[in-house]
Amino acid sequence: MTYNLVMIGFGAVGQGFAALLQNKAAELADRYGFQAKIIGVYTRRASLFCPDGLAIPALLAAAQQNDLTAYADHANLRRDLNAHYQITHPATSAVIEASLTNYVDAEPALGHIRTAFSHSKHVVTVNKGPIALAYGELAANARRSKCFFGYEGVVMGGTPCIRLAEAGLAGARIEAVRGIVNGTTNFILGKMEAGMAYAEALAEAQRLGYAEADPTADVEGFDAAGKIVILATLLFGAKLTVADVDRTGITQISMSDVQNALAAGQRWKLIASLQREKTENGERVLAKVSPERLPLSDPLAGIGGGGNAITYLTDTIGGVTLTGAGAGGKATGFAVLADLLAMHARYGN
Amino acid sequence: MTYNLVMIGFGAVGQGFAALLQNKAAELADRYGFQAKIIGVYTRRASLFCPDGLAIPALLAAAQQNDLTAYADHANLRRDLNAHYQITHPATSAVIEASLTNYVDAEPALGHIRTAFSHSKHVVTVNKGPIALAYGELAANARRSKCFFGYEGVVMGGTPCIRLAEAGLAGARIEAVRGIVNGTTNFILGKMEAGMAYAEALAEAQRLGYAEADPTADVEGFDAAGKIVILATLLFGAKLTVADVDRTGITQISMSDVQNALAAGQRWKLIASLQREKTENGERVLAKVSPERLPLSDPLAGIGGGGNAITYLTDTIGGVTLTGAGAGGKATGFAVLADLLAMHARYGN
Repeated sequence: MTYNLVMIGFGAVGQGFAALLQNKAAELADRYGFQAKIIGVYTRRASLFCPDGLAIPALLAAAQQNDLTAYADHANLRRDLNAHYQITHPATSAVIEASLTNYVDAEPALGHIRTAFSHSKHVVTVNKGPIALAYGELAANARRSKCFFGYEGVVMGGTPCIRLAEAGLAGARIEAVRGIVNGTTNFILGKMEAGMAYAEALAEAQRLGYAEADPTADVEGFDAAGKIVILATLLFGAKLTVADVDRTGITQISMSDVQNALAAGQRWKLIASLQREKTENGERVLAKVSPERLPLSDPLAGIGGGGNAITYLTDTIGGVTLTGAGAGGKATGFAVLADLLAMHARYGN
Repeated sequence: MTYNLVMIGFGAVGQGFAALLQNKAAELADRYGFQAKIIGVYTRRASLFCPDGLAIPALLAAAQQNDLTAYADHANLRRDLNAHYQITHPATSAVIEASLTNYVDAEPALGHIRTAFSHSKHVVTVNKGPIALAYGELAANARRSKCFFGYEGVVMGGTPCIRLAEAGLAGARIEAVRGIVNGTTNFILGKMEAGMAYAEALAEAQRLGYAEADPTADVEGFDAAGKIVILATLLFGAKLTVADVDRTGITQISMSDVQNALAAGQRWKLIASLQREKTENGERVLAKVSPERLPLSDPLAGIGGGGNAITYLTDTIGGVTLTGAGAGGKATGFAVLADLLAMHARYGN
């Protein structure tokens, strides 16, 4: 089966996905009977659409020059179509929403996804905004339209923590979640264990591109809080915001704290967690981001560098931990591919 | 949708599954729209069949007494039907093969599964024999019959390492596998790190029921070799036998080896591995079981006690590691449930 894809946004993730689709075309057809063409790319600066398919190498070359308008003309190519037209075109099978995240109102991505489902198009999103703000509505839209809705890439990049929870652990009840979901702080804590002062470790993270010039979002735990809120939505159906998270960053962790822990065979890690708690009327979900001193027997203690890991504590098989490299354009592009293959497994026959 | 299940074998795994089905009935109906009845149980000593459904609490009570024939009579109950009759009965939707593993010819389980597919019944197996000896044939039978074939429980109990590889990592190519898949040897090595001599640690493992009276299968790496051969089959389609595995056990690891590693911040682990290797005509898979001295930065180094873990090294997102508690009746019973929910997701609408 051949799917016609429209991509909204074509940054690192979109390009990573397109390159995988190109490089793996034969393997995907052979192993899964899956074939796909990119028929549209829509960004803030360019619109390319051709129901016969766009040429991926030329798309990637134009994106490398940071100018999609440099993509050369060919038969049936149109450059004047808006996102709505591309999404709703009869040739379109699935929409990949990879535009920039907007946590205020999730637009324009939210509108794109609503439009897609109302026209019976499958959707894969790597955009956190619509998941954070409107997951429940969008999942219901998808069910009603009998469309696939994939969002593996919104947390932990290509490491399939969502599919592990939804499919691998189907039938288990996740009682609590504990994770290392911010690579920057994990990198800094690791450098401090190696003897580097906090300020120096932060500067190194900035030099390597892990941390922003203003590191507040990472080191004060806002980024981790945003991710744990999304996991609360996806795993527990809980409606939390970052303001609901009991949040402490790593800036109060001193070199002596780190070294004392090491001497006792322990490690400081910034842990993002969710815990179900029974209330009079049902239950609520407690969300927390805080540095914790872990014994080496904790599966999260061994996560080094910029790695990510998550532990699901279940009612049936105890704790299950998934560890991976975290984000990056290629890894998150892979999440888009994995979602499309899940769509194909479910709707392709 | 309500599925009618026939269970072949009703040991710890079968009972663990039945208890989950009973305890989670409301949750499964609510979350997944999944309902199931056990309409048949067939063991070497007893046969119970009733198309209206058997009473799970009474089944579990009889199994607790180690005598399924003690299950009380009720309307439409029959005790005289063979496995073939139960499997092929028009009321049967799915067969759960949980009889004892036989690595010589995989019978009678292999015949049961062939019969099921030839009569268009879904199959979930936790029995390693048919997977080790005839996976390719059975998977082809399942595809031809448009039936579900689940086997999550054959490796790592309830920890969903198969579904992680097949669904979570769909689209990735697994280049190599490294795992701790034998809890007994991991337990012994851990005790040796704590200062206990090998013989004493082994005796402790035997006392706790982790190790058999004859510990050869565990400590010489045969059990791990059997599991890695199954993973070679499932993940790479490679036809290996235990004799093809380059196998070394833990009996040559001395206390000073263990302590020297610890002093250097490293740990000895019994690692089962698979590695693709290019050959003139294509590729082959190298399988190995051997103690390795791991740095603490290796995600497998932190696995303590009887835990299991597996790392998949992929072409797209680097290494992904899954850690869980490993086997046990309840955990492997959970794998059966997760397989049935995957069947329901695929065929239930």
